[in-house]
Amino acid sequence: MPAIALVIEFDGTDFVGWQYQENGRSVQEQIQKALSTLYKEEIKVTGSSRTDAGVHARGLVCSAKVPFIIPEDKLPFACNALLPEDVAVVKAYKVSEDFNARFDNKGKRYIYRIYNSPFKSPLRRRYSHLVTGTLDVEAMKKAAPFFEGEHDFAAFCAAGGSQNTTVRRLTKVEVHDPDENGIIEIEVVGEAFLYNMVRIIAGTLLYVGQGKIAVDDIPSVIDSCDRERAGKTLPPEGLTLEEVFYDYA
Amino acid sequence: MPAIALVIEFDGTDFVGWQYQENGRSVQEQIQKALSTLYKEEIKVTGSSRTDAGVHARGLVCSAKVPFIIPEDKLPFACNALLPEDVAVVKAYKVSEDFNARFDNKGKRYIYRIYNSPFKSPLRRRYSHLVTGTLDVEAMKKAAPFFEGEHDFAAFCAAGGSQNTTVRRLTKVEVHDPDENGIIEIEVVGEAFLYNMVRIIAGTLLYVGQGKIAVDDIPSVIDSCDRERAGKTLPPEGLTLEEVFYDYA
Repeated sequence: MPAIALVIEFDGTDFVGWQYQENGRSVQEQIQKALSTLYKEEIKVTGSSRTDAGVHARGLVCSAKVPFIIPEDKLPFACNALLPEDVAVVKAYKVSEDFNARFDNKGKRYIYRIYNSPFKSPLRRRYSHLVTGTLDVEAMKKAAPFFEGEHDFAAFCAAGGSQNTTVRRLTKVEVHDPDENGIIEIEVVGEAFLYNMVRIIAGTLLYVGQGKIAVDDIPSVIDSCDRERAGKTLPPEGLTLEEVFYDYA
Repeated sequence: MPAIALVIEFDGTDFVGWQYQENGRSVQEQIQKALSTLYKEEIKVTGSSRTDAGVHARGLVCSAKVPFIIPEDKLPFACNALLPEDVAVVKAYKVSEDFNARFDNKGKRYIYRIYNSPFKSPLRRRYSHLVTGTLDVEAMKKAAPFFEGEHDFAAFCAAGGSQNTTVRRLTKVEVHDPDENGIIEIEVVGEAFLYNMVRIIAGTLLYVGQGKIAVDDIPSVIDSCDRERAGKTLPPEGLTLEEVFYDYA
């Protein structure tokens, strides 16, 4: 049976998240409905990530087995004609039958966007988190690299996760200077993530910017494995899953 | 009686436009309601521009006479607490009593945003116009300066305008290379504008990018004063009123 992988972009504002829920509008349901119409039988997809309600994606990947082949360059157009305006397929791959978007992914890149201004911005509100009051961006930039490498990230994990270990490896954590729109990007790349991990790291870096945690205290906050010592979980609208990495076979 | 000028940002998606309408959600109505609550009497505002339904603004300006003074640095916060999330006051000025945002403005800066991609983008859809198919951006860049200076812009004016003359002066028309998000910005600065003028100029530059009008034909399209020879009126979501210029007294 042929198998496909689809790269999905969506505006998370009006979704309950990626995963199918009986009572709620999920991205997974939209994709499954479109594919089922297209292939004229029920298609189930497996997602790379269960993004939360309100979180956006530019490159979530899902995989599915399908009954016949639609060429890779035609498939996004065929899907998009059947999808609502807040979700789209931006790339399609033919993959080997045992490909699984959840288990085969090699890592993910997230960006958390903070808009730092005294005033709310109607044109930025959907895709960033407003922080009023001055921020020491230089301090945030200095604190970020402490998160890189292999650590026990127990302090950066929301309750309710069911993982065996809270050790994870991050390959890049970088805070970028505000762009011309006043958006500060916090970029986080890693192999795998704990529940709410990026939003808690972003919240901790925000505390550094606000002078609530000193740059040099970050290693001890990490080592403490104490959720109370890290920053708040920032709201979902600031977070975008930018990319998921695979060796497409 | 004191007078104020407010710089307004709004997401035009869910508005019928700036101007008050009996049956429709206008930006003007939201501002007037907030100011009337704040000043405890009915306040009317005059806008710099009547933006159309769906058009955005980062810097529309409106003026009003008010019964008492609220300090300029406090006024945006007070207004924003009373405004919905898709409109905000981002700056306030105390102005002379005879200041009028409509008649005293010295010019405006607009940007029309085109997203050029084979696929729709859920994350860009609200603030840009999707154009599939390749575009010759270099040709668009060469064509833009022909619009600068004083011309009769009759070919770039929607029917229904009531102006005495269709002569206008543009001081800058520039097409920018796609940014990192794939957005091509068409920047238009001028003293005054005809109805739909920026959206028709953008549509004409788009025709140049698509090879439907040659770069060298632009002067004759302008001189023809023939609406049929210019491009289509592009849809409102791509347009943002970025700035309105004044000599604030």
